[in-house]
Amino acid sequence: MSIQTQVIETVRNGVDTAQMYGTLDALNANPELGVFQFRASNRWLGGAHNRSTIRSFYGAGQEDDSRAEAFSIDAGEPAVLLGVDTGPNPAEALLHALAACLTTTLVYVAAARKVNLTEVESTLEGDMDVRGCLGLTDEVRNGFTNIRVRFRISGDAPQEKLQEVVQRAQARSAVFDMVSNGVPVHVEASCQSS
Amino acid sequence: MSIQTQVIETVRNGVDTAQMYGTLDALNANPELGVFQFRASNRWLGGAHNRSTIRSFYGAGQEDDSRAEAFSIDAGEPAVLLGVDTGPNPAEALLHALAACLTTTLVYVAAARKVNLTEVESTLEGDMDVRGCLGLTDEVRNGFTNIRVRFRISGDAPQEKLQEVVQRAQARSAVFDMVSNGVPVHVEASCQSS
Repeated sequence: MSIQTQVIETVRNGVDTAQMYGTLDALNANPELGVFQFRASNRWLGGAHNRSTIRSFYGAGQEDDSRAEAFSIDAGEPAVLLGVDTGPNPAEALLHALAACLTTTLVYVAAARKVNLTEVESTLEGDMDVRGCLGLTDEVRNGFTNIRVRFRISGDAPQEKLQEVVQRAQARSAVFDMVSNGVPVHVEASCQSS
Repeated sequence: MSIQTQVIETVRNGVDTAQMYGTLDALNANPELGVFQFRASNRWLGGAHNRSTIRSFYGAGQEDDSRAEAFSIDAGEPAVLLGVDTGPNPAEALLHALAACLTTTLVYVAAARKVNLTEVESTLEGDMDVRGCLGLTDEVRNGFTNIRVRFRISGDAPQEKLQEVVQRAQARSAVFDMVSNGVPVHVEASCQSS
């Protein structure tokens, strides 16, 4: 077996399946390695402009220091919602989080099931009445009333197997779970009069 | 009254309060202008790397074309979760969405209540057992079990009033609502065998 053949067999969909099975074995042997804490810091920059900085996290039994630099994501609002368009608005950022998580979960599931994907695209839509979040009425909720996700997927498996991969991704996606079922959020504030 | 004085009185916390009150009046007069649809498109780029593109939305009675260019956000996973760190992971992106929405809502509420803010920072933490999303056990949920948000705020109001602004932001934030209470998500897929 040539080295090239080994590489082709080990990496599927850009996922190192040997590493994946090693990770799953380690987690089965030591369940406490599954405990993760993810973090973000955010700073207001004026008006609807704020920026999150994301770097450190805890996982696999230790503080992770593998990231050479922090990531940052800017938020904003379009003019019609009183901003100057400094970034996607927070509701759009939530759609990104959902799309990204479903996609990555789908890619990992496909890699585990020996499905070679050639294309994964999705479009997401969320409907809201902004009179809720603008404080004008209690008759509508503040957030989206519903979200629609449409995937287009190509891969070397029958359509039914590709559909199964999508269903399994939905059943295991962390953000799909959070957005569908909700998460307890505790907010506290340290306030200083200036 | 000088022009400078007028500007100081109209723009508070970087929010044009005259525009804000005009918007609220328009929405009260024509509630159908409150109907918005936000969107994101996502494309898989290999492994845990995917990218969302965000531009168009519907709101205030029309398709909005005010954005000159699309925004994009990359997602990835760190090495320990089988990626090559091409961006914040989806769970971290959800923390960003939550931080950004609480912050913008807080800034708008403060502007409406004549509170001049000088600093708004937040740190967020979310806890999860990744054995859920990796498909190893049904005994833990896939997403965060809980999220903690800690704000540090400075402004020209008594601490109690600043705390009220934080509470009002929490009561009106679109993403806080969605993450706390959940949203129905409908996923469909068009699959092609390649």
